[in-house]
Amino acid sequence: MANNTDYEAMLQVAIAEARQGLAEGGIPIGAALFDQDGNLLGKGHNRRIQEDDPSVHGETDAFRKAGRQRNYRDKIMVTTLSPCWYCSGLVRQFNIGTVVVGESVNFKGGDDWLKENGVTVIDLNSQECIDMLATYIRENPEVWFEDIGL
Amino acid sequence: MANNTDYEAMLQVAIAEARQGLAEGGIPIGAALFDQDGNLLGKGHNRRIQEDDPSVHGETDAFRKAGRQRNYRDKIMVTTLSPCWYCSGLVRQFNIGTVVVGESVNFKGGDDWLKENGVTVIDLNSQECIDMLATYIRENPEVWFEDIGL
Repeated sequence: MANNTDYEAMLQVAIAEARQGLAEGGIPIGAALFDQDGNLLGKGHNRRIQEDDPSVHGETDAFRKAGRQRNYRDKIMVTTLSPCWYCSGLVRQFNIGTVVVGESVNFKGGDDWLKENGVTVIDLNSQECIDMLATYIRENPEVWFEDIGL
Repeated sequence: MANNTDYEAMLQVAIAEARQGLAEGGIPIGAALFDQDGNLLGKGHNRRIQEDDPSVHGETDAFRKAGRQRNYRDKIMVTTLSPCWYCSGLVRQFNIGTVVVGESVNFKGGDDWLKENGVTVIDLNSQECIDMLATYIRENPEVWFEDIGL
């Protein structure tokens, strides 16, 4: 079982993805999928703006990059932001065992629903994640409110 | 508001996609997104086998092909099979107003959850859809049980 120090290190991979997305002109949300030993399987970031594709959320991108896995129960999905319903559905459908969330202040998705369905959800309440996205939303409100599906 | 005859016609578009997937050596599940006037916005099918990508379910493929829409509340997602949690999450996150399901006999996903959250779900209980997927599962059980995420 990973400890919080490991989770913080994993979150840094997701944050680097979010920053890459921002540098590309996109929404700064990143994610990464790890195995239980902390090996990186795939990482990605939101690319709705870059690819004009509203389905490319960070978690889906990381999941896709990891390729087909035989089992997800022992995998850890790390994301800079609380997962939306789409990404929460991904976690539940594929039985991903653990989700590490950077923050749920700017947006809170399916965290509680996932917990109710047996997923371990760890919210690191990262100030770095909070500030990065809050700044983006303040500067690009119209992009954000389209993305969140309202 | 569309009537059942319209929904049956829409389902035929999704069925044609499923058959195309089968012809490609893939899992026969298809979907299509329509606007409230019955205009086709996008269609697609499961391409996990074809692209080695477990995230390309029929609904996600159709959603992606439709491009960015400003609003999904008046849209209709038609799928040959009851939507899994991932695709149900897609519907909820983007506030798609109506889901037309070909069948929920071979697999039942988030139909009830979507209804509880204000989505209109119409199950056409199509024998054509039931038979098409049942045959596939019988002939390819190992593929199916990987896809369904168990």
